[in-house]
Amino acid sequence: MTHQPKVITAAVLVIGDEILSGRTKDKNIGYIADYLTDLGIDLREVRIVSDEMDDIVAALNALRHRYTYVFTTGGIGPTHDDITADAVAAAFGVELYEDQRIIDILLQRLKPEDVNEARRRMARIPRGGTLIENKVSRIPGFRIGNVIVMAGVPSIMQSMLDFAAKDLETGVRMSVETIEAYPIPEGAYGQALGEIAARYANVSIGSYPSMVDGTFRNQIVVRSKDKAALSQATADVEAMLAHLKSTQH
Amino acid sequence: MTHQPKVITAAVLVIGDEILSGRTKDKNIGYIADYLTDLGIDLREVRIVSDEMDDIVAALNALRHRYTYVFTTGGIGPTHDDITADAVAAAFGVELYEDQRIIDILLQRLKPEDVNEARRRMARIPRGGTLIENKVSRIPGFRIGNVIVMAGVPSIMQSMLDFAAKDLETGVRMSVETIEAYPIPEGAYGQALGEIAARYANVSIGSYPSMVDGTFRNQIVVRSKDKAALSQATADVEAMLAHLKSTQH
Repeated sequence: MTHQPKVITAAVLVIGDEILSGRTKDKNIGYIADYLTDLGIDLREVRIVSDEMDDIVAALNALRHRYTYVFTTGGIGPTHDDITADAVAAAFGVELYEDQRIIDILLQRLKPEDVNEARRRMARIPRGGTLIENKVSRIPGFRIGNVIVMAGVPSIMQSMLDFAAKDLETGVRMSVETIEAYPIPEGAYGQALGEIAARYANVSIGSYPSMVDGTFRNQIVVRSKDKAALSQATADVEAMLAHLKSTQH
Repeated sequence: MTHQPKVITAAVLVIGDEILSGRTKDKNIGYIADYLTDLGIDLREVRIVSDEMDDIVAALNALRHRYTYVFTTGGIGPTHDDITADAVAAAFGVELYEDQRIIDILLQRLKPEDVNEARRRMARIPRGGTLIENKVSRIPGFRIGNVIVMAGVPSIMQSMLDFAAKDLETGVRMSVETIEAYPIPEGAYGQALGEIAARYANVSIGSYPSMVDGTFRNQIVVRSKDKAALSQATADVEAMLAHLKSTQH
């Protein structure tokens, strides 16, 4: 029995009416999914909620108690619909304070009279939070506890994620084998694949249909943090497919 | 006071490890968001969960009691990781039965001996469910109560959504005005925009930054089901922006 590696989990909380109305197509979820997978952090759940305080707080509290980390995107700009900082402060039961370091960043590019009430909203950080820098807009997000609060604009979010990643606990990376199953249809190997999957507790096996140029394709993906188990399960899948190929025609 | 129109709400539940690992980039959420918005159905929440029975059942029960409709995507194929039908049956506390109409569809294209245990999984429908046809793969999804269960492959999902839409209660469509605010930065109008937003209870006003070719752009989007309120709020926003433009330079 191999030593069970520590599992680090995460959730993403996307905040924004514009995603739910379809106006903006989210580009952050897939990016964060790839990024966390590379770090050995298991993304377990994603939620998209509207710019409603109660909904954001409820989702934050559900997720932050369940997963190692929660990454939020959206709602940290200077307008009235940017209420993520307020929601995070409410979820943690702390006050917001105005962070002078962010005011200073604003003053580097704006006249003092333009550092107005709206822009000062972006300097409001929940007490106990640390700043998450970014190289694109320079206005930081923040982290409090296990919650990392990032912008919704993808380039800014990506820069913040790079900064936040330096302080994340990471797990063992999932190793992955992708097996082209086409032209054997899913229905032909479904039962045998299920039997292989049932034999390996530490291996996750999925079968994924897709449509390429009007033709159905399908791949089998074998994933595990245990490389020996991964190789063995992959060999079993390949042998099973070879057997089906030889008996089908 | 205008008569308050009936509000029809929805949630989307995306089921699949492949989305959370980043292997597959979801293309269904944005499509369904646009589609429901066009029907006057308010998409209020999206969740993405893994292929774990307990997680799917918990999400289904949270969402179906809260929103008019829940649309699920993924997990209805013939392999062991396709457990959406089981999860929906568990959430509703009903049994699965094998639907002869689906077996007949399978028999139209397969030899009887190829309608095996794996493929028969796709014919399992929760008692009380109705079939959701699709013209792409021809294997149906289903609807039970307010839950519409669809495939994950986008072309199939889209065909199922067309079929399901015929029986959906629809609401008043949201009318939308998009105002180009650039080159006035969000921080310059944030406060005034918030004051306008506070004056219109039935109007939702958002300000959305984006990055186009390395330059920040920003638009203000005004949305309402009340066209008179929409025009008035839009006029207020435009007057506010015109005033800022005239005073800035």
